[in-house]
Amino acid sequence: MKKLLIASTSTVHGKSYLEYILPELKVFFKGVDTILFVPFARPSGLTHDEYTDKVRSVFSTINIKVDGLHHYTNPIEALKKAQGIFTGGGNTFVLVNELYKRNILDTLRDVVEKGVPYFGTSAGSNITGITMMNTNDMPIVYPPSFATLGFLNFNLNPHYLDPDPNSTHMGETRETRIKEYHCFNKIPVLGLREGSWIAVEGDKITLKGKLKARLFLQGKEPVELDSGSDLSTIEYVHLI
Amino acid sequence: MKKLLIASTSTVHGKSYLEYILPELKVFFKGVDTILFVPFARPSGLTHDEYTDKVRSVFSTINIKVDGLHHYTNPIEALKKAQGIFTGGGNTFVLVNELYKRNILDTLRDVVEKGVPYFGTSAGSNITGITMMNTNDMPIVYPPSFATLGFLNFNLNPHYLDPDPNSTHMGETRETRIKEYHCFNKIPVLGLREGSWIAVEGDKITLKGKLKARLFLQGKEPVELDSGSDLSTIEYVHLI
Repeated sequence: MKKLLIASTSTVHGKSYLEYILPELKVFFKGVDTILFVPFARPSGLTHDEYTDKVRSVFSTINIKVDGLHHYTNPIEALKKAQGIFTGGGNTFVLVNELYKRNILDTLRDVVEKGVPYFGTSAGSNITGITMMNTNDMPIVYPPSFATLGFLNFNLNPHYLDPDPNSTHMGETRETRIKEYHCFNKIPVLGLREGSWIAVEGDKITLKGKLKARLFLQGKEPVELDSGSDLSTIEYVHLI
Repeated sequence: MKKLLIASTSTVHGKSYLEYILPELKVFFKGVDTILFVPFARPSGLTHDEYTDKVRSVFSTINIKVDGLHHYTNPIEALKKAQGIFTGGGNTFVLVNELYKRNILDTLRDVVEKGVPYFGTSAGSNITGITMMNTNDMPIVYPPSFATLGFLNFNLNPHYLDPDPNSTHMGETRETRIKEYHCFNKIPVLGLREGSWIAVEGDKITLKGKLKARLFLQGKEPVELDSGSDLSTIEYVHLI
């Protein structure tokens, strides 16, 4: 059974890296001895080794070992043997570009479809949607496609940010950007606030955490969804 | 002689559309009867007609007529006959995609190189850099390339925003994003704050407006440049 934990962010304000979600991870990865870490999004330009070490030091506190996918000369085999997978945040363009370049997107999809638990934060969550077209990231590399894993019947906007009524900045708000997206695309978009996550268990997709999420549908006013909402009912027919 | 006015934003807080830059435009487009407007960036999903009308109403106050490029069945001929060009802001991905789709990027570059005055705001400014890789926009369409006009010896980050020391949001700051860019690319990036613009006159490139701009060079700490700075000395050899 497909099993994913898809978090808006790795870090919430005032807490350390992954701290807020660690109790969930303990349950989510129960029985998993070692997870395979996908370090390709490289936040702040961290090297793959530096990023893997950072993740390793946190997972060691819940007695889970961490292997970096970049170490394997045959990443497809590594994915097929994985007990659990974590894709960390950073730059979504860089992440998606690497997944295509290393030709591992399809294998990653297959193994997760078959039941290997997948945890993602930020960019690592973004790629669980149908496309990466609602990322907030800067296009610092040019990936061969924006199509991603498609585990959800919608796209994600992680780190969703409400408009600041006191801002004097004239750049577009997040809501404006997503509405512009719907001038060109039909795929629903879920704005996932920091501290929220999505639990996928088979066909069941549930909003988790304390906050509401904001759902954008083409041609409709956005709506707020309560934590606990069943997201599998968001209507979009997508065949992967 | 090449002549461009490259503005960070169309609108500054508390003023109406183009109001702050209108005195400059009057001088910049002196002798120009009609400008050709490139409406393809479609801010807030405005139609090409709606966007052109919005621009027309402002330029009428300085007695300049506005033609929408989207009206021409032969946009290449229209560009070649233009007395002046304005590319408005909106979504840079949408703009660049349209320029490629309509096969007009090269002609646009040629006519501006030959001396047709070019005014850009936001996305319309972004494309005067070497690539669009430092846009803030959401990748809502997939353009065939990120390469742009290359009139500058650097890339632009319009609407440059300083980190907010009071923010509790964990998304990347603009500075972090640009530094990540320099993990993968050598092209210098100028963070152009709202209210700043760049004047290009032949080989002379000058920072204008009241504010400083922030220059990011690969492997170096960013520096603040005063208004009036000569930007042509930014070292990057780029052959278009």
